[in-house]
Amino acid sequence: MTTELRVIPIKGIGEIPPGTDLGLLIYTALQQQNLSLEAGDILVVTQKIVSKAEGRTVDLNTIEPSPFAIKIAERYDKDARHVEVVLNESKRIVRMDHGVIVSETEHGFICANAGVDESNVNGAHLLTLLPVDSDASAKTLRARLQQLSNIDTAIIISDTWGRAWRTGQVNMAIGVSGIEPLTDYRGQNDPYGYELHASMISVADELASAAELVMGKIDQVPVALIRGYSYTPAEGTINTLLRDASTDMFR
Amino acid sequence: MTTELRVIPIKGIGEIPPGTDLGLLIYTALQQQNLSLEAGDILVVTQKIVSKAEGRTVDLNTIEPSPFAIKIAERYDKDARHVEVVLNESKRIVRMDHGVIVSETEHGFICANAGVDESNVNGAHLLTLLPVDSDASAKTLRARLQQLSNIDTAIIISDTWGRAWRTGQVNMAIGVSGIEPLTDYRGQNDPYGYELHASMISVADELASAAELVMGKIDQVPVALIRGYSYTPAEGTINTLLRDASTDMFR
Repeated sequence: MTTELRVIPIKGIGEIPPGTDLGLLIYTALQQQNLSLEAGDILVVTQKIVSKAEGRTVDLNTIEPSPFAIKIAERYDKDARHVEVVLNESKRIVRMDHGVIVSETEHGFICANAGVDESNVNGAHLLTLLPVDSDASAKTLRARLQQLSNIDTAIIISDTWGRAWRTGQVNMAIGVSGIEPLTDYRGQNDPYGYELHASMISVADELASAAELVMGKIDQVPVALIRGYSYTPAEGTINTLLRDASTDMFR
Repeated sequence: MTTELRVIPIKGIGEIPPGTDLGLLIYTALQQQNLSLEAGDILVVTQKIVSKAEGRTVDLNTIEPSPFAIKIAERYDKDARHVEVVLNESKRIVRMDHGVIVSETEHGFICANAGVDESNVNGAHLLTLLPVDSDASAKTLRARLQQLSNIDTAIIISDTWGRAWRTGQVNMAIGVSGIEPLTDYRGQNDPYGYELHASMISVADELASAAELVMGKIDQVPVALIRGYSYTPAEGTINTLLRDASTDMFR
């Protein structure tokens, strides 16, 4: 039975130094908003604050670009040190054209710039890298929140990615814990008795997208609480959402 | 200022014969749920009921497959009449492999099977085709709802599509009216004073995905009301979300 869904922005989360106890920070921010976690709640947390808390940042000034990075940077009018970091974060280059590098990360994600983002922190020009193991990041955060609140939530770590064929970016899931990220309707019947052939819904991606709507880019809202969504509890892994190379027509 | 978002399933919408006054049907369903439209409301409506109301269905038994469709169907173990309809709805085949046909529709959408879906209606095995002009469908529905309620809403017509590189499907926007589907943050600064380089958010796709979370596939919920999202009012067109061929690296 589907009921109303609420997507609630969690505010008051400021700058995130390395080593930040994200669970405590989010728990405190929820309290300041007079929100208590409830069973079945989902927290969507942007990659940027997870990466910062985990110290997954690089100061551009410490990077020595390779000749290849310098050549690519010149061709696309980019910063060679930035290109160097993108190459280092890539397992494989999928496309390199129009000034865009689409690569596959060690996690198996296929996205622009291997998920490397620019960020200003206290005047230093930093790059944020994706968490090394974003499922593990989600799991750690979930355990910490459970410790603090005694409530088992689902955690989705999200990042803002472009898509093939369509302009604009949307939030997608890059790490999960406590939720099965894919809902499989195959073999079930629709309301008209017709068997659903090709219906596996990537609910983790849809939840990440829903969360983005209350986050914005300018407002400083790196966490959203989603309440009222009936999901399948599971440890879960983002690998479920990664298409197998053997059926990937756009490698 | 971001506030809480509500995503509300609109229930009680039954089978949709051709010629159905969708605006009246949705208006009535809202009333039965004790909901009144408010300024700023967004209605996400699945393609399937729009196509059915517009008579964009084909009875498989009326289709004479071409030799090419027969050959493809044999290779992929499909119904040749279904393949024939997919070919007819395609402007161009993007990929044809692993039993999947990814094609570009006349609208410029790139999706599996040209958006052709199977559906059982009163025992007949029908295929639903995408609306001929899904922006126009959205515009007509918006005007009808405005006539009935005196409230100007935004309409998003959604469909459930797969993605490159990721398993599972998500809802995406295929037609809009009353909303600018893309929010462009380029040239603005993030909270840390850093200029946002590559931030155009496809809010129409995110809204469509958020709506899917209350629709499900088995529950018969083809319409969702989204309340509390501050969007940019505009006539809007889905063409804004279609990547130009010259920058499309996955054609």
